[in-house]
Amino acid sequence: MTDTTVEKTPVTLLGLGAMGAALARAWLAAGHPLTVWNRTPARATALTADGARAARTAAEAVAANPLIVVCLLDDASVGEALDGADLAGKDLVDLTTGTPAQARARAEWAHERGARYLDGGIMAIPPMIGVPEAGGYVFYSGSRDLFAQHQQTLAVPAGTTYVGENAGFAALYDVALLSAMYGMFAGVTHAFALIREEDIDPVSFAPLLADWLVAMAPAVHQTAEHLRAGGPTEEDVSSLAMQVAGIPTFLGTAEQQGVSPELLSPYFALMRRGLTESESGGKESPTDLVDLLLH
Amino acid sequence: MTDTTVEKTPVTLLGLGAMGAALARAWLAAGHPLTVWNRTPARATALTADGARAARTAAEAVAANPLIVVCLLDDASVGEALDGADLAGKDLVDLTTGTPAQARARAEWAHERGARYLDGGIMAIPPMIGVPEAGGYVFYSGSRDLFAQHQQTLAVPAGTTYVGENAGFAALYDVALLSAMYGMFAGVTHAFALIREEDIDPVSFAPLLADWLVAMAPAVHQTAEHLRAGGPTEEDVSSLAMQVAGIPTFLGTAEQQGVSPELLSPYFALMRRGLTESESGGKESPTDLVDLLLH
Ligand SMILES: NC(=O)c1ccc[n+]([C@@H]2O[C@H](COP(=O)([O-])OP(=O)(O)OC[C@H]3O[C@@H](n4cnc5c(N)ncnc54)[C@H](OP(=O)(O)O)[C@@H]3O)[C@@H](O)[C@H]2O)c1
Ligand SMILES: NC(=O)c1ccc[n+]([C@@H]2O[C@H](COP(=O)([O-])OP(=O)(O)OC[C@H]3O[C@@H](n4cnc5c(N)ncnc54)[C@H](OP(=O)(O)O)[C@@H]3O)[C@@H](O)[C@H]2O)c1
Repeated sequence: MTDTTVEKTPVTLLGLGAMGAALARAWLAAGHPLTVWNRTPARATALTADGARAARTAAEAVAANPLIVVCLLDDASVGEALDGADLAGKDLVDLTTGTPAQARARAEWAHERGARYLDGGIMAIPPMIGVPEAGGYVFYSGSRDLFAQHQQTLAVPAGTTYVGENAGFAALYDVALLSAMYGMFAGVTHAFALIREEDIDPVSFAPLLADWLVAMAPAVHQTAEHLRAGGPTEEDVSSLAMQVAGIPTFLGTAEQQGVSPELLSPYFALMRRGLTESESGGKESPTDLVDLLLH
Repeated sequence: MTDTTVEKTPVTLLGLGAMGAALARAWLAAGHPLTVWNRTPARATALTADGARAARTAAEAVAANPLIVVCLLDDASVGEALDGADLAGKDLVDLTTGTPAQARARAEWAHERGARYLDGGIMAIPPMIGVPEAGGYVFYSGSRDLFAQHQQTLAVPAGTTYVGENAGFAALYDVALLSAMYGMFAGVTHAFALIREEDIDPVSFAPLLADWLVAMAPAVHQTAEHLRAGGPTEEDVSSLAMQVAGIPTFLGTAEQQGVSPELLSPYFALMRRGLTESESGGKESPTDLVDLLLH
């Protein structure tokens, strides 16, 4: 229900795809005056019925309010949509997924047009938007003042985590977390493939797998401590040696189960490289595998 | 302290490496009469001071008790150590890591010698042994009767999870879970590499990464449901398409940060293959990536 006793910050939202529409619903539900625009106008219809104002052009939507949120397909579509809009004095919040370099370039582009810029990386899927219990959140980076001024409004659809003035950091954190997740999913794909042809119910297997991953995830804290300290211990090197000794068991099991090792073999190769360089006088350890990935 | 009012099952333990020594301490602490043997006898000294009996040969250790636990380097060392021992009527529990095929062959080998056989895969590191709060456990498979008879004794060092009569299943579950973990570690390595050269404290970054992985781990339940149901939905295919569309952002970010994509690119390639086959009339989805790994 709309609380008419407190004035809610009006929001302009460009983009009503799956994510944009979810954002729109969250702000409407919280009583924020909302102006929307979408390239395909039909997508705005359901929202205007619920109180949103639909602008005919992106430029008109931008003119309507000081706070502009953009959630489009990719960075190129942001440039296209905002081409010709007057951004002077505006606060531009870009929730479109992109690379750190795209975000930094877009920040500069916005500054040249007289706007403050905040980049966002959404760590949620649409059903989690406007549902605080779902735990979704958005990484923000760029203008600290913009973030401070609008944090309450930005917190309506999902939690907010500000990660620095460097406009590229939100995208970097976003991509880093999702990259780690894809690694986990790759491992999970391999694990399910290993049991696929056996008389093992994947649904009974899943909780063992999920619990194990949850139990092992905190290992990242140790990796982080080592990266900060800048050097592995003797113990790390011996643990890397033990892991390398175990590789044939992993490859052998994959072969026995008829599973291609393609998703894991690059990590095994990296572990072997780390151990070789470590034994030949380097200081590589399981944590220094990180540095072996850097060019 | 030893409870002298209840007779604890005597145990023979072969192998006093890091893991074997931890197992020995747990059984001694729980008051089980313990006979130990290790190829290098010096490793038994500290344990005999604490009440263990050291046998001079593996055959002598095997003769001492009906329940024999083996925890050696690899399957070959188990064959070597037990060569010449009389296993008739013995209960052999093999906690040595190996492949499913090695476990099944070792089970048959034991049966030929008149022993019951139980294979184990230890999901713990030595400091977690004898510490129930640490959550470590052992997968067991093989003789159901052996497991039922000795479960209480086996539960002393770590939790027990019986996964079937197929002697290879403990190794298979073990390798599957560790494979998934290595995938996760590969993703984590990539993630830390992405932020390595930036002014970002890895120790502040770690909790965000760990929490994210913990939040995403339950996705395995959905994968399992789909594998059981045998087919992906329309929704899965569209979600795979969205993920494939995002790949350039991941590769672009890695390139910008000077990070080799080698750990993640095989998974991206598999996603692309899944989408292509899906669009060309197949039924592949994110969950069917599992089947694409099978030969
Ligand atoms: N959905 C998720 O789970 C999720 C999660 C995290 C982040 N994100 C990010 O959120 C952003 C939006 O995602 P989504 O799921 O809402 O995508 P979507 O459903 O595919 O919607 C894409 C939106 O972009 C618009 N668009 C595309 N090209 C355009 C152009 N050249 N000019 C103007 N508008 C254009 C589309 O307008 P039309 O309606 O006219 O096609 C539509 O509003 C993406 O960057 C995505 O990576 C999404
Ligand atoms: N440590 C862990 O974190 C961990 C976790 C899960 C599972 N495991 C598994 O547990 C098993 C033992 O691991 P560990 O950490 O105790 O290894 P370890 O510290 O390297 O000890 C290896 C043991 O195997 C013995 N051995 C090696 N070759 C032998 C041979 N040919 N004949 C007889 N004995 C031989 C060694 O005897 P000597 O003392 O004479 O060399 C020693 O007792 C391995 O299969 C490992 O994969 C270990």
